[in-house]
Amino acid sequence: MTDFQAFEQITIIGIGLQGASIAINARERGLARRIHIGDISKAHCDRALEIGLGQMATQDLAAAVEGSDAVFVAVPLGAMAAVGEAIGPALKPGAIVTDTGSTKQSVIRDLGPSIPSGVHFVPAHPIAGTEYSGPDAGFLKLFEDRWCILTPPPGANVAAVQRIRAFWEACGSLLEEMEPRHHDQVLAITSHLPHLIAFTIVGTATDLEAQLTQEVIKFSASGFRDFTRIAASDPVMWRDVFLNNKEALLESAARLSEDLARLQRAIRWGEGEEIEALINRARGIRRALIEAKQA
Amino acid sequence: MTDFQAFEQITIIGIGLQGASIAINARERGLARRIHIGDISKAHCDRALEIGLGQMATQDLAAAVEGSDAVFVAVPLGAMAAVGEAIGPALKPGAIVTDTGSTKQSVIRDLGPSIPSGVHFVPAHPIAGTEYSGPDAGFLKLFEDRWCILTPPPGANVAAVQRIRAFWEACGSLLEEMEPRHHDQVLAITSHLPHLIAFTIVGTATDLEAQLTQEVIKFSASGFRDFTRIAASDPVMWRDVFLNNKEALLESAARLSEDLARLQRAIRWGEGEEIEALINRARGIRRALIEAKQA
Repeated sequence: MTDFQAFEQITIIGIGLQGASIAINARERGLARRIHIGDISKAHCDRALEIGLGQMATQDLAAAVEGSDAVFVAVPLGAMAAVGEAIGPALKPGAIVTDTGSTKQSVIRDLGPSIPSGVHFVPAHPIAGTEYSGPDAGFLKLFEDRWCILTPPPGANVAAVQRIRAFWEACGSLLEEMEPRHHDQVLAITSHLPHLIAFTIVGTATDLEAQLTQEVIKFSASGFRDFTRIAASDPVMWRDVFLNNKEALLESAARLSEDLARLQRAIRWGEGEEIEALINRARGIRRALIEAKQA
Repeated sequence: MTDFQAFEQITIIGIGLQGASIAINARERGLARRIHIGDISKAHCDRALEIGLGQMATQDLAAAVEGSDAVFVAVPLGAMAAVGEAIGPALKPGAIVTDTGSTKQSVIRDLGPSIPSGVHFVPAHPIAGTEYSGPDAGFLKLFEDRWCILTPPPGANVAAVQRIRAFWEACGSLLEEMEPRHHDQVLAITSHLPHLIAFTIVGTATDLEAQLTQEVIKFSASGFRDFTRIAASDPVMWRDVFLNNKEALLESAARLSEDLARLQRAIRWGEGEEIEALINRARGIRRALIEAKQA
């Protein structure tokens, strides 16, 4: 329990890994008296009620948000616009709408226009995840000691921003505010590009002759395995991240391609000093991470 | 202790992570009665004696191998030829020379010619490592449940191969034999390419404006961090791996570049189905790893 003054009623739209973890936090830490759930999957709704994630669950998203003081939209980025259209007219005046999307410019573009005046919009990105998905994947400590970045629009309601900030602090998160565009640049490098590369390298291994692929699996402990873990994340979620952070991601990917080409060239021409310098440069970042206690 | 019939005396050339771990295994499991150490670094020799890795340590590599029944060459790939020239004339007739190199064709090319007739050469690759290096990095369980691949040349002495196999089994390793060329292909995909990519992506992040780099460090938990861990490995060792598995590595890197370009193009043109298919393909490999108990 914290000194967070509980919401009377919240709604979680999308009861996957993030949504279920928000529900568990709200329930266990007493952050909301009632939890309503909206999810277009009947199986998710049924399962959410079965494991006690809320008092009510429905595929009717408008009905799910009725009377709620805060609405957490935790759906893939590609579903934001449709969710906005569905819930917009049913939002209670004075309510806060927030989200968990991995990109912020696209959420503001897709969800923003559906938020009626008198309802407060506080885009948020809890940077936390696992390779698992669905209502059963949620757990209490998902957000603990993890960053949650808020990207409130200029002129956002100060009290609403403070309320969402306090909610995430109560979940154990570290809070930060950023410009949406800057958020998307930082995440392109720290998260989206690593996932892009992991999916690619694991895919490349799939295309080998069958026998070689079997051996890659057998001897995967030597580096490859770490990539497969990242590459196990939810495909729809990541498809939408890639499509909705196109500009920053393609810019990062282009830089990476250039750097990769440079290293390939150094290997082809046997340029040992160049290769060693490139490797040492990478180690510098690792040291900085250790110093920043992020390793 | 195992039923391995101990070597009377072994020599370890190069007392880094792998060499020190071999010494600790030989000592703790009773695989050798005497352990001699050869290392071109005086600091490494002194430290090795200080922490009890052997009875004798010297920078004179020829002196180090004198009278030994087995010699483990655990140096960076680029040093193999020089080590061979130094120890070749001093090897005891009937001795076995083996190694720990991450590529096998280059070791056979560089070390092979220095092995006199009457001395048995059994190239080996224990697939085990950490991000740490130096004599203090060694530990007993490094090789436990990890693969060790032997690539004996055609006509290799069967008893010598069996002896090295038994040594590694006594260290807890799982044994496999392969053609050297095939070994290098498999390792290019499972180990060398993942390291190449990790060094590259971490390096790419270093080139950002200073403020952005700081934020990449701060928010690294979202995927990037996993790459920095791989990228922390020893620069000289990896430089030499890249230079000595050029053909297979450049072939793998070229495939990866093509696949990366394809994914970049799909993102640019908003081809959601294509992206999702690529991601799903990567997840298939992850499932295969879990089934093979390699996850």
